[in-house]
Amino acid sequence: MQKQTEYQQAIKTKYPEQVVIAIARDKNGKANPITLGWTMIVSGQPPMMAIAVAKTHYSIETVRHSKCFTLCFPSSDMADAALFFGSRSGRDTDKLAQFDCATEPAKVIDSVILSDAVANFECTLESETDAGDHIIFVGRIVASHINTEAKKRLYTVAAGHKLGPVQ
Amino acid sequence: MQKQTEYQQAIKTKYPEQVVIAIARDKNGKANPITLGWTMIVSGQPPMMAIAVAKTHYSIETVRHSKCFTLCFPSSDMADAALFFGSRSGRDTDKLAQFDCATEPAKVIDSVILSDAVANFECTLESETDAGDHIIFVGRIVASHINTEAKKRLYTVAAGHKLGPVQ
Repeated sequence: MQKQTEYQQAIKTKYPEQVVIAIARDKNGKANPITLGWTMIVSGQPPMMAIAVAKTHYSIETVRHSKCFTLCFPSSDMADAALFFGSRSGRDTDKLAQFDCATEPAKVIDSVILSDAVANFECTLESETDAGDHIIFVGRIVASHINTEAKKRLYTVAAGHKLGPVQ
Repeated sequence: MQKQTEYQQAIKTKYPEQVVIAIARDKNGKANPITLGWTMIVSGQPPMMAIAVAKTHYSIETVRHSKCFTLCFPSSDMADAALFFGSRSGRDTDKLAQFDCATEPAKVIDSVILSDAVANFECTLESETDAGDHIIFVGRIVASHINTEAKKRLYTVAAGHKLGPVQ
């Protein structure tokens, strides 16, 4: 049986929620990662994925500038990196350098991929849509990578940015 | 370390993937549910969620017709319903009637909510965006409901529509 409640109460049932890290270069060439929970696949043929990025975040201008981005599925042992990338701004921080996160060059787009991620997807920017306090970016996947080791994906498992594996 | 691979191989790392059931009335008034794995929150203020629906699916015309839809988080004991709603077409099936799924009237929009779900969100259609073989529908949440009992959310835990709880 259902009872009506406030949105903020009802949305607490969303966990576990998947986590991705999106990376795009800014106008100075700095590859800037942001951790996001709001993401989905949106097309099978051609493959596309979408992310929702807060309008106040630096990543808005980096994605618009470079017109491409990497989407990484962080592994469950990357919780500290995900928290760091999600809590600093690329406006005044070189997040990949400060966290000392291993990267490799992307193969098709001008970005980087994360060496320790479960998987990385290189995307060219397909469209953007205004949605409340966020922008939805749709990326067309032009190259895909997986880790040579089997790893578990990272999730937000509870409120308060509690991160970890599931199952 | 990463190795480049085919998208279809890399995307197998996506699991567990959350599941939602979207419900919209068709032009005859029939409430038509569809099970979807491609969904995300897209705005906090005002709250909005997005779904990606295959262009060939009947739900495209039901959402466009009614300009609103319910988004339900099915509970982990609703795997059979989720499989049924995701494998039949509303063009020739009254899925809610055939599966004998308990519903309650929505409070604000002209749709129904699912009594056994973890949560239900009533959405008015905010926008639609073309994305490859799918349409992205963004819904503005105008009412929210939670189950009076604590329940776990349903996920696709592995390929082949294997559904279940996590953690």
